[in-house]
Amino acid sequence: MSDDKKQAITAKKAEDFSEWYTQLVERAELADIRYGIKGFVVYREWAQITMEKMFRIMIDALDMTGHMPVVMPTLIPEKNFTIEADHVEGFAPEVFWVTETGADKKLEERLALRPTSETAFYQMYKLWIQSYRDLPYKRYQRGSVFRAEKSKATRPFFRGKEFHWIESHNAFATEEEAMKQVEQDMHITHEVLYKRFAIPHIFFKRPHWDKFPGAVHTFAADALMGSGKVLQLPSTHYLGKNFSEPFDVTYLDNEGQSKHCHTTCYGPSISRIYGALIALHSDDKGLRLPLELSPVQIVIVPIFREGKEKVVMDYCNQLAGKLRTMYSVYVDGREGYSPGWKFNQWELKGVPIRIEVGPRDLEQGTAVIARRDLNEKKEYLQNSLPQDIAKIANEYTANLISQAESSFEQNTVSAHTLEEVKAAIGQDKIVKMCFCSTGPQGTECAAKFEEASGGFIRGEKAFVEEEVQGLCPGCNKPAKAVVYVAKSY
Amino acid sequence: MSDDKKQAITAKKAEDFSEWYTQLVERAELADIRYGIKGFVVYREWAQITMEKMFRIMIDALDMTGHMPVVMPTLIPEKNFTIEADHVEGFAPEVFWVTETGADKKLEERLALRPTSETAFYQMYKLWIQSYRDLPYKRYQRGSVFRAEKSKATRPFFRGKEFHWIESHNAFATEEEAMKQVEQDMHITHEVLYKRFAIPHIFFKRPHWDKFPGAVHTFAADALMGSGKVLQLPSTHYLGKNFSEPFDVTYLDNEGQSKHCHTTCYGPSISRIYGALIALHSDDKGLRLPLELSPVQIVIVPIFREGKEKVVMDYCNQLAGKLRTMYSVYVDGREGYSPGWKFNQWELKGVPIRIEVGPRDLEQGTAVIARRDLNEKKEYLQNSLPQDIAKIANEYTANLISQAESSFEQNTVSAHTLEEVKAAIGQDKIVKMCFCSTGPQGTECAAKFEEASGGFIRGEKAFVEEEVQGLCPGCNKPAKAVVYVAKSY
Repeated sequence: MSDDKKQAITAKKAEDFSEWYTQLVERAELADIRYGIKGFVVYREWAQITMEKMFRIMIDALDMTGHMPVVMPTLIPEKNFTIEADHVEGFAPEVFWVTETGADKKLEERLALRPTSETAFYQMYKLWIQSYRDLPYKRYQRGSVFRAEKSKATRPFFRGKEFHWIESHNAFATEEEAMKQVEQDMHITHEVLYKRFAIPHIFFKRPHWDKFPGAVHTFAADALMGSGKVLQLPSTHYLGKNFSEPFDVTYLDNEGQSKHCHTTCYGPSISRIYGALIALHSDDKGLRLPLELSPVQIVIVPIFREGKEKVVMDYCNQLAGKLRTMYSVYVDGREGYSPGWKFNQWELKGVPIRIEVGPRDLEQGTAVIARRDLNEKKEYLQNSLPQDIAKIANEYTANLISQAESSFEQNTVSAHTLEEVKAAIGQDKIVKMCFCSTGPQGTECAAKFEEASGGFIRGEKAFVEEEVQGLCPGCNKPAKAVVYVAKSY
Repeated sequence: MSDDKKQAITAKKAEDFSEWYTQLVERAELADIRYGIKGFVVYREWAQITMEKMFRIMIDALDMTGHMPVVMPTLIPEKNFTIEADHVEGFAPEVFWVTETGADKKLEERLALRPTSETAFYQMYKLWIQSYRDLPYKRYQRGSVFRAEKSKATRPFFRGKEFHWIESHNAFATEEEAMKQVEQDMHITHEVLYKRFAIPHIFFKRPHWDKFPGAVHTFAADALMGSGKVLQLPSTHYLGKNFSEPFDVTYLDNEGQSKHCHTTCYGPSISRIYGALIALHSDDKGLRLPLELSPVQIVIVPIFREGKEKVVMDYCNQLAGKLRTMYSVYVDGREGYSPGWKFNQWELKGVPIRIEVGPRDLEQGTAVIARRDLNEKKEYLQNSLPQDIAKIANEYTANLISQAESSFEQNTVSAHTLEEVKAAIGQDKIVKMCFCSTGPQGTECAAKFEEASGGFIRGEKAFVEEEVQGLCPGCNKPAKAVVYVAKSY
């Protein structure tokens, strides 16, 4: 690493989230925006090591719940892409088209860089699914997708024209089984996103006007970011027969009747979740990462004094050897850098645990441990270091979760008028309110709230019954839903 | 799985390799060629589970040898792609171009679907590499690449227009260090390809006319396939300053002098290696896979007799429970399929070990084990099953290796005239011969051999000195190299 050039973050997260995030990404060397195509960025080493771990965790969770992997081509023929009407309307403006190859040879048919892969999967499901015995049919693929979004600014990991995800496409005999899958997707999300990636979130059933193109119902996890805005993380969709009918995906039931499948899809974007994770946990010193996801979990920094370099270094290496049976450990014995510089550097990189050992520690049988979850330093006895480290490691990710957790409840306020909504959104709150309808009839009211407050109606809490009373503050008609309004990324 | 429809392979590998391979891929459900774009196929579950394991093994090997992961965009701006002259000449005819987005909006600059990523990496290396302290700079990425090859037929995994690989791009201060990396790449290939994937191979230094576009030297692993043809597997390239100069990738040495880096690249294509692996080990019954790579390692088939279903099934589940601590185990208790049908099915799928248990076995305390490496069946005592299984599992992959290993030495013959070369290639041999030159001067002779015999000059054995004597049988000039000629995929 050419660390000479690295600089600390100067922006404050609380004051200017946007600038702070930009500096974090640049200075911790997570992504590089200088690739040369607008909206496309390079993911750098420190980010990619973590994202690869995240991919493996998510893939393992899918494997354990009866999904199997397939790999579709990255390109989709134009004709597939026009079969489901809402879907094409939703994605057509964002498609990158391959039109020619080699020495300017025009293709007979344009090929889409997939913006999502329903239209690739379903043409194959028509061939692969035959009998009720094939169901449920649960498949996923890992890959990148491409969306030429116009309006929105690129922010590395949060939003870009290519992102890296897993998409799962499942087929069932009945709506009930399909909806059970939606619940399982939410459960997987909780197990992975909350427990492993330390991201508290709430699933909302999206209103009619904010559904996935082609979906009957969309359920999406919103995480509350430090700035009071929410970020949409994985979403799962019940598609009814909206795809199985146009793509003719049928099965013979046990009486020999041909029926269309009910289908669902689930799409955790690992690159976007990584963005949420670093934005949520990091602070003005730099990155903070769940212990399991950090490329280096423990850094040992020897404090050199003249003539004592070797004995200190020997101890550090010996300690590292012990700890490596459990953790990924780096001994930063580089010359030409002060201990203070190294401390800042590894705090910027979010290494969870730092151990500092100098000649005086060797005499006293002590070592200093600095932990990034609490940002505090304490002296420990060398004898009990492995146990102390184990204790800290055990608490570490739970501490990140609990620090992030205050979020929703604390930041949610109720409102009953448009003015109250405006005021609360202005204070970066999430607003709970009664609303006329999350169906098509509510579209106009929603637009009114959005324009007035800058907040978006995220939907009703998924699979939670809440008491509705009173009138919709938008149109004064009787309310039929309890919804949440928030600013979003 | 809708196994009702599955059919056995009818073609014989020894008689019609091409048809046999096609049937293997279709009937074991490894890939589907019905995707709808010529040259693009879908990888199905059974193949992808194995390929994901292969990716993890290869990535771990790269991580352990000091490489770090990055992710570049899939698209490369046209201007990057024209900077290195040989490179553009080599790849330009095969590039898929993105020219427009959304509602027919023409892009200002065409974007290439990467055929390989040198031109993406080097523009970033110019920014990232500054000082000799940054070197060696070793990075890799996992992804797919796209080549609109015209002339060659698609064969799933072996050859197609999109394939899935890892590409590593490394930069060094000196040629010597760069060449050490080439040797390390060959070592990684041996450790992974030979020991873990059971594929014997030989590294050749490719002749001048068969180098990677832009390379100074190309070293490629050729595996001998069942049919007498060789298949090129991972290759590693010393690029000299051919990329660092046009892309201006420089470092300041320890005296403050700016110098261009020496670079290398290494590109193991996992999808192609998978093709080699299944073609090499499989037989007329179906797939054979190294134990570690098989999606299911042990299948237990209960033999039902009326009234004894439950007791047999209970024993099978209990045995599976024990074995699952070490292996991936599937108990095939499906009704409506005969034991014989199940045996064939799992042999087609290449499950390494099958355990058959019926009521008579329960009385006798026995079980039958059928192993796919030796294609033989034997009765074992239930008491010692875990130890017996462990012993078989230990030998299994080694047996596949040794069966494949006879290859090169046995199939290599020497030749001294064009006629002898023709005859030997006609008998599916690899031909060793003296040759005028693997430099540009040999191009014409090589074309003569290719046209006359159908064999290609694969090059000299890499890092092996062989005694050269006599004249080149092509041009009768004094020979300067010992080369190997073979038919190839």
